Amino acid sequence: MSKPKGFEKPVGVRDYVPYAVDKLRAIERNVLDCMSRWGYRQIMTPTMEFYETVGVASSTSDQKLFKLLNNRGTTLVLRSDMTAPIARVVSSLLKEEPLPIRLSYHANVFRAFEEEAGREAEFFQTGVELVGDDSPEADAEVVALAIESLKAAGVKSFKIAMGHVGFLNGLFEEVLAGRTHDQQSLKKHLLDRDYVGFRKAIRELAINDEQQIELEGILRLRGNKEICDQAFDLSRHPLAQASIDHLCKVWEVLEAYGVSEHVLIDLTMIGDFSYYTGMTFEGYAAELGFPVCSGGRYDNLLRQFGRDVPATGFALKTNRILDGVKGAVEEERRPVLIRYTASRRREGLAKAAELREQGRAVVTLLIQDKSKRLQEPAGMYDKVETFS
Amino acid sequence: MSKPKGFEKPVGVRDYVPYAVDKLRAIERNVLDCMSRWGYRQIMTPTMEFYETVGVASSTSDQKLFKLLNNRGTTLVLRSDMTAPIARVVSSLLKEEPLPIRLSYHANVFRAFEEEAGREAEFFQTGVELVGDDSPEADAEVVALAIESLKAAGVKSFKIAMGHVGFLNGLFEEVLAGRTHDQQSLKKHLLDRDYVGFRKAIRELAINDEQQIELEGILRLRGNKEICDQAFDLSRHPLAQASIDHLCKVWEVLEAYGVSEHVLIDLTMIGDFSYYTGMTFEGYAAELGFPVCSGGRYDNLLRQFGRDVPATGFALKTNRILDGVKGAVEEERRPVLIRYTASRRREGLAKAAELREQGRAVVTLLIQDKSKRLQEPAGMYDKVETFS
Repeated sequence: MSKPKGFEKPVGVRDYVPYAVDKLRAIERNVLDCMSRWGYRQIMTPTMEFYETVGVASSTSDQKLFKLLNNRGTTLVLRSDMTAPIARVVSSLLKEEPLPIRLSYHANVFRAFEEEAGREAEFFQTGVELVGDDSPEADAEVVALAIESLKAAGVKSFKIAMGHVGFLNGLFEEVLAGRTHDQQSLKKHLLDRDYVGFRKAIRELAINDEQQIELEGILRLRGNKEICDQAFDLSRHPLAQASIDHLCKVWEVLEAYGVSEHVLIDLTMIGDFSYYTGMTFEGYAAELGFPVCSGGRYDNLLRQFGRDVPATGFALKTNRILDGVKGAVEEERRPVLIRYTASRRREGLAKAAELREQGRAVVTLLIQDKSKRLQEPAGMYDKVETFS
Repeated sequence: MSKPKGFEKPVGVRDYVPYAVDKLRAIERNVLDCMSRWGYRQIMTPTMEFYETVGVASSTSDQKLFKLLNNRGTTLVLRSDMTAPIARVVSSLLKEEPLPIRLSYHANVFRAFEEEAGREAEFFQTGVELVGDDSPEADAEVVALAIESLKAAGVKSFKIAMGHVGFLNGLFEEVLAGRTHDQQSLKKHLLDRDYVGFRKAIRELAINDEQQIELEGILRLRGNKEICDQAFDLSRHPLAQASIDHLCKVWEVLEAYGVSEHVLIDLTMIGDFSYYTGMTFEGYAAELGFPVCSGGRYDNLLRQFGRDVPATGFALKTNRILDGVKGAVEEERRPVLIRYTASRRREGLAKAAELREQGRAVVTLLIQDKSKRLQEPAGMYDKVETFS
């Protein structure tokens, strides 16, 4: 292994030069302001957490956690999401706060991906958690807020795909009761959106034709509200029925919000976190080939931190939006350059202070030797004023 | 070692609950906006850097660096300051940019302090680097900007103590030529501001009376511009003289900025980073018992990253300002609560959307059972509107 060179940085992390920072900051500000108007108050938590608590609860697989030791020899992790740290805070610092609690965040999170994958090891998420409300109203609120947040971030055209982990769990229990391995393998295909593999796996299962048709039926459960009715017919398992009932009610509330045009029901969707217990959703932008947000209900997570309350939430994948969305921020206004000789320094600096007071960006320069002409890259300054 | 409990977090790191976040965000925004008006463009760098490059260059002692391994087995560190990462970026991504380069940042940095000390292991710094200008004008610019930044952060009354590492180095070379160990030991006393220890150490040195008087004379070199004249008399060493000459010129420019009332010269000051090569300064707030900013010139650091250019800068100690400064942000405006029955949901949500459009924070609630009265903590909402 060769020694890294001075200008190098680790694989999977990035520098943001000024224009990119302005764009990222604009997205951050617009989205957090939007969340604030929905009554979500911003929270910040430390970069490092205990492996044994937040690390384990985070649902990021062990080999993807960045681990380090503190000077007591306890294993720490760099946070891999904000949901688990917020669950910890709601159960400690905020444990006296009345429910529901609405919190928002913009934070960097860390995942140790295999280098070949070219994925980012550090990236930003901007999201909310709504704690202490298990109603369809609460799930609809976070979906509606996700839609407003995507708009605030400058994402023009997008769809939210909404599912429910309870429906799949119920249906699988009905057809494949107790066959955990088979259930896991089918779920893996759905998570990977590998529908060919899913069909193939079904055909290899020791089940009858009717059961095969029922399992294959899942793949057709993508569309508008009519999907709820079809799903009611497909599985009579109580958990599946209760889940679809909940989802129907969420849809109704989304219609009242006037945002259901952005939503489709997709019962093949699992959600990428193992802590999800109910409704889950993902957002897809027309201009981008990957999800720009994901969220869902996680009613068992807070129990691990000592406060047994339901919760739902989502996170925008802020870096993907940053990279994919055009024109989220106007071109940076170029500064004014004020040049002065030593004898007129006081006037030059006073002028600079005056313009800054007015909100302009001003750069100052002492003209040290009139024979040496200043190298002024064309177009670098909005205006040049000289005091000499 | 006992297993950490669910609600615990590692020692030395903190959670910021909503009111503290609002205050921190206000400081961050006001200071970055101020820096932007001085032509400094914001930059962001990764949390993790190579130990061998940025870690070593950072001038944080080895045992205070948080280290971890990436999956190639290379040692990484959590950044302990922003000066070294910015030096890397100026030497790589920005290497074609014409000088001078003005950059600002607001970032969390990490130091593995001994737990007993009760110091923070993760904290925020907000600062600037001015790269590619070795003139007194550049040093004065960053001092003047530090003063404006402290004002923008809400620090009411403060003083900047300004020194020059070249003066001490020159004077020590004159009196203690080649006696590196003695020089280091004296510097340590000055860094710790242990003047009693400094006097005692001088008396124990094998030097003559005149030399003793010269070394003790350093302790009197704190005050206004007249200190420059006294320093010229105290040491005739060329490096000491050149350093004082530079400092005089910086003072002159600070007078032209109209900010010299905030500044005093303190030639006992060393600066807490080993990479400082010239002018150094620290800011002290009247209401707080510790420095609120520090900065200085570091002309040799960028060479380590392959771009041999001078640089100067400073960082505010943002957490100390957050904890120490009162009233930096107005009390958060409480949200409006809109309650609705299922049959009037559409109206209630439309009203919420309308108020949010006007910039108000609105929380919504479905009234599910009129017999169950809503628990409304007194004073939690600005206004309650009911649609039933």
